Amino acid sequence: SAGPSILETNHSMNTEFLLFSGFLVFLMQAGFAMLCAGHIRVKNNMNILLKNLLDCAVGTMAWFLLGNGFAFGENSKGYANPFIGVGDFALSNTTTNTRSDSSWHLFFFHWAFSAAAATIVAGAVAERVAFECYMGYTCLMTSFVYPVAVHWVWTKWGWLSPFNATPLFGSGAIDFAGGILVHCVGGTASLIGAYFCGPRIGRFGVNGEVNRDYRETNGNLVVLGTFLLWFGWYGFNPGSAGSIAGYTSAAVVSRAAVATTLAAGTGGVACLIISFIINRRWDVMQLCNGVLCGLVAVTPGCGVIDPWAGMLVAILGALVFLGADALMLKVQLDDVVAAVPMHLGCGAMGTLFVGLFAREEFVKDFYGVNPSAGRRWGAFFGGDGKLLAAQIVALLVVMLWVALFFLPYFWAMRRAGLIRVPMEQELAGLDASKYGVITTNELPTMPKPRQKVYM
Amino acid sequence: SAGPSILETNHSMNTEFLLFSGFLVFLMQAGFAMLCAGHIRVKNNMNILLKNLLDCAVGTMAWFLLGNGFAFGENSKGYANPFIGVGDFALSNTTTNTRSDSSWHLFFFHWAFSAAAATIVAGAVAERVAFECYMGYTCLMTSFVYPVAVHWVWTKWGWLSPFNATPLFGSGAIDFAGGILVHCVGGTASLIGAYFCGPRIGRFGVNGEVNRDYRETNGNLVVLGTFLLWFGWYGFNPGSAGSIAGYTSAAVVSRAAVATTLAAGTGGVACLIISFIINRRWDVMQLCNGVLCGLVAVTPGCGVIDPWAGMLVAILGALVFLGADALMLKVQLDDVVAAVPMHLGCGAMGTLFVGLFAREEFVKDFYGVNPSAGRRWGAFFGGDGKLLAAQIVALLVVMLWVALFFLPYFWAMRRAGLIRVPMEQELAGLDASKYGVITTNELPTMPKPRQKVYM
Amino acid sequence: SAGPSILETNHSMNTEFLLFSGFLVFLMQAGFAMLCAGHIRVKNNMNILLKNLLDCAVGTMAWFLLGNGFAFGENSKGYANPFIGVGDFALSNTTTNTRSDSSWHLFFFHWAFSAAAATIVAGAVAERVAFECYMGYTCLMTSFVYPVAVHWVWTKWGWLSPFNATPLFGSGAIDFAGGILVHCVGGTASLIGAYFCGPRIGRFGVNGEVNRDYRETNGNLVVLGTFLLWFGWYGFNPGSAGSIAGYTSAAVVSRAAVATTLAAGTGGVACLIISFIINRRWDVMQLCNGVLCGLVAVTPGCGVIDPWAGMLVAILGALVFLGADALMLKVQLDDVVAAVPMHLGCGAMGTLFVGLFAREEFVKDFYGVNPSAGRRWGAFFGGDGKLLAAQIVALLVVMLWVALFFLPYFWAMRRAGLIRVPMEQELAGLDASKYGVITTNELPTMPKPRQKVYM
Repeated sequence: SAGPSILETNHSMNTEFLLFSGFLVFLMQAGFAMLCAGHIRVKNNMNILLKNLLDCAVGTMAWFLLGNGFAFGENSKGYANPFIGVGDFALSNTTTNTRSDSSWHLFFFHWAFSAAAATIVAGAVAERVAFECYMGYTCLMTSFVYPVAVHWVWTKWGWLSPFNATPLFGSGAIDFAGGILVHCVGGTASLIGAYFCGPRIGRFGVNGEVNRDYRETNGNLVVLGTFLLWFGWYGFNPGSAGSIAGYTSAAVVSRAAVATTLAAGTGGVACLIISFIINRRWDVMQLCNGVLCGLVAVTPGCGVIDPWAGMLVAILGALVFLGADALMLKVQLDDVVAAVPMHLGCGAMGTLFVGLFAREEFVKDFYGVNPSAGRRWGAFFGGDGKLLAAQIVALLVVMLWVALFFLPYFWAMRRAGLIRVPMEQELAGLDASKYGVITTNELPTMPKPRQKVYM
Repeated sequence: SAGPSILETNHSMNTEFLLFSGFLVFLMQAGFAMLCAGHIRVKNNMNILLKNLLDCAVGTMAWFLLGNGFAFGENSKGYANPFIGVGDFALSNTTTNTRSDSSWHLFFFHWAFSAAAATIVAGAVAERVAFECYMGYTCLMTSFVYPVAVHWVWTKWGWLSPFNATPLFGSGAIDFAGGILVHCVGGTASLIGAYFCGPRIGRFGVNGEVNRDYRETNGNLVVLGTFLLWFGWYGFNPGSAGSIAGYTSAAVVSRAAVATTLAAGTGGVACLIISFIINRRWDVMQLCNGVLCGLVAVTPGCGVIDPWAGMLVAILGALVFLGADALMLKVQLDDVVAAVPMHLGCGAMGTLFVGLFAREEFVKDFYGVNPSAGRRWGAFFGGDGKLLAAQIVALLVVMLWVALFFLPYFWAMRRAGLIRVPMEQELAGLDASKYGVITTNELPTMPKPRQKVYM
Repeated sequence: SAGPSILETNHSMNTEFLLFSGFLVFLMQAGFAMLCAGHIRVKNNMNILLKNLLDCAVGTMAWFLLGNGFAFGENSKGYANPFIGVGDFALSNTTTNTRSDSSWHLFFFHWAFSAAAATIVAGAVAERVAFECYMGYTCLMTSFVYPVAVHWVWTKWGWLSPFNATPLFGSGAIDFAGGILVHCVGGTASLIGAYFCGPRIGRFGVNGEVNRDYRETNGNLVVLGTFLLWFGWYGFNPGSAGSIAGYTSAAVVSRAAVATTLAAGTGGVACLIISFIINRRWDVMQLCNGVLCGLVAVTPGCGVIDPWAGMLVAILGALVFLGADALMLKVQLDDVVAAVPMHLGCGAMGTLFVGLFAREEFVKDFYGVNPSAGRRWGAFFGGDGKLLAAQIVALLVVMLWVALFFLPYFWAMRRAGLIRVPMEQELAGLDASKYGVITTNELPTMPKPRQKVYM
């Protein structure tokens, strides 16, 4: 018709919503970088910054060239199979789409997610992983492993997706904002990477005792990072609703923001108190950990649970995190920023939680009612357990998928002696090698390399 | 009707506007934390971060369980009395509201405000207040004291509110974005807390001379904090319009953004120049203070004054701040981040300024015209002084309300010896106690406690 | 008509879009400040923060009082000449506009841009420029030089503008987001300022060898600054579309976000790899530089080029940057943060790139088709070279315009001995002078001044 229409206005509003949400998700990269930089020893400071910023930069190219196509691509007939997307590589389809159907904002939003998924591992393997090994991991993750899992769970074609016409168990798995896809994917890769890298030299004594000196060098950076991550999560969780135009969409988005907030606050308080009971000190680092645990734990279900359930899942998240963290140290798995307990532990727990506490009304609000299969919700609220079953299957399958690639990858890198920097480099600090910058202010006694001075 | 309506689209736009404004307000927590961490001595660094992040986390739970209900709750008949809200505790009503009437975004926005109000005090009593005492204050503030004041001034039921059907003096008090409710509430509590805590050991000499070594340890953090606060204020001030859909709403929001900007810039320049005249140095800390003074001073009136008046109120704010700061030091009140001169001083001045400089047109744009009472505006522009009278009454009453709780609270804590850490802890630094983390990098000579190592 | 209209809703959406974009652009000030603080020596830390924050504050007043009027002002008949705007000083017109025509948000958005243009120079002349000289520059830039150039290129009256009824060469110059107006303007002023200031003492040896100790003192701040700038660029580039309501506008905005993202990532990778080939080290500082190069390079064309072209322009940007940076060092031009190679080098290259790679379809989408002149696009895609000619003319004319003011200004300041701090101050560090703050923690051996203690 002549003149602007409400549909056009709503499309624009949703575009704006998704872009600004994506901007916030992108800022989580700054949060991750500050968090990691605050947790590692100063001698590896430049190196971790390099990895954090570079996986974002490299991931951008990988997602554009390949990842987005494997996740969302359709063939020329608008079809994709349940297992992998093929098409739209390098945005080849999107470039020519009509104005009313433009999807650049979808590409942008999911790019920010792929970067978040990849960067989780940086902290787990910090201070000893070889630069080339880490970059190989990043490319593999953002170009193929993560995108295929996204195809399974978030697209209408995916075999695990609740948007599928014939969803798994008549339900499909609900991963509202990426608890499986971002946190469990990143967490599983972190576990495998940390295992094959082995612990930092001196992290564990000969009898397995833990050296506390290896953590928490800069509390200001950790707290700044935590706040930036919390802030960015408001793009991550509410933004995952995908649209805000319409009464129902607006309610889903804002309810997700409330659940996210309650989880962050409650997780922080829970983790602080529990760690106080154990250690008899009020530890701001555990408060930060708890906030992030709450945020991870509420991610899979933030749009389909009651806000009060956000508090419950956060408390469970704090317990899972502290238990898993203790276990990691017991088995001498060295994870510099506790990425495995946080992202895999809380992400998996939160995924199962959805199978128990998803509300019928909220699930139907967002996912609609499948004409043939109906719609399943949490077992605790009278659902029939099929959603829970789908959650379990999706979680395990995606973890296996990640392992299928990164077990061989990190194993082979270790066999080839490429996974880890040489011992003398690790002891001297990675910044003293060619994989960093020697800054005279920080390392005044290091000999300066003789070479062409460029900048 | 069938299909989407403009009303639905506008509701969604307002939801989006309020959520993103709330996200920015939340990020002010990071600004506060960096500002405080930059102003305190390194030996108390972890401790101030703990308090800044924890009051936000605890405040989240308190606001959800109690505060929101005392501020905005209505009974089952949709009624509330002029003095206190009762209902909707733990969002019990909101959970079941219909989609077209969802108000999660309102809860979210006001949660971010409550956290801002509470955290102001952290800086004032930093470096010596006992952890438990501070947490008790936070709970009391966010669960009851602040919410009840909000009920009075911002709800249609409140006895001081311009939205009241029969407003005070036929006008009601105009506190557009929380100059009274956030800044004067936080500033009054800061004044009481700082008084009862007493100054830090060594802050004042035996003859009352001021020890300058107690300020400004990390300028980078202070400037970063100032920028983050300025950024967050764009959620705080324009966001307080509550809606942006419609020509008038859009004009109110964007005019508030302009007034806020002019106040920030002008306040910074004014404070820098005045302090240069006094001290003969160009002090970036006074520039930061001035920016924040301007922002506080323009908060009560940003939506109802001309942008140029934002410049005027900022200059007055800089004068009030510098005078009040000098007075505080003269009477040996130790306020680590100058929270009292800034939040109470500039907040109160800005509140009175509204009574003089609010424009008739802008007041009617936003508050509408009360059918029985009409609408009052600034005395300087031909108003009849009733708005000014309401401003004075609201300011004094709210300050008294805050004092009613925190005078007894801090007095009792001091009597019980619970207000302040032991002298040896204060001298050693709070981070060396159980209320912080000993970081080997920063405090290498501290003996490490023998205890179960957990993380 | 009665009730809200779609036009009203769209106006509100565009207002919201421009305000939030402006908020992000403002946060770039924090990014600049952290970047500069990270690149300079600690003894000048407070001083650079002072300049970074103060040019923003002073620029706010200058833009309000004068700049906005010279850029966008029209006379009482709604007319402006092609060379300068006159009117609306101190928002004198805007104050009285009707609600449906309010333009406060435009003022706000362009204020944020003017602050960005001014602050670029701070890094180039850091560590030795005199405070008063720098403030004079800032006032001149934000009140007159930058605004007049904006009038030429971005308003419908401007003689270089594509919105002009009879555009230059039937085309006008396309500067979508300020590659000429912000980056080349700031970069040209940086070049002139750095030349007349001369290099820092000891930066170059007697034989022209470069002292590497003068860079990169705090990598955490540099990386944080880079992330904040990248984040803010999402307001800068997509926001420059000016509106998002409507299918076409939404497509332009989101395509610009994608091109910006690809340029940032690719520029970072390219600069890192090229610098590795030259220096044999993986330097996170070059990664940061590359990200910013990509962002600058894509700025002029982000809304009218294909996303893949964003990758291409970023690679070219990295080459231009590294070449220009080497050249600067060779001719012993000392530019502390490499502002000239980055902002002038990449900005100019990106401007010419538009003349080659702007797509017909995208140009017509955004700029419409001029009834008499048609519309020109990139020579590489079959355009006739008139756009490229307009780009070259606009670039040169604007650079000359900047030089017309700042060549005499900085020359005169040098002649008068006012451009630079005294040698003993530079050696002692600017923070030890009256233009900074002596912080006891950082400079414990400096004698403390005896003077009235104020705060």
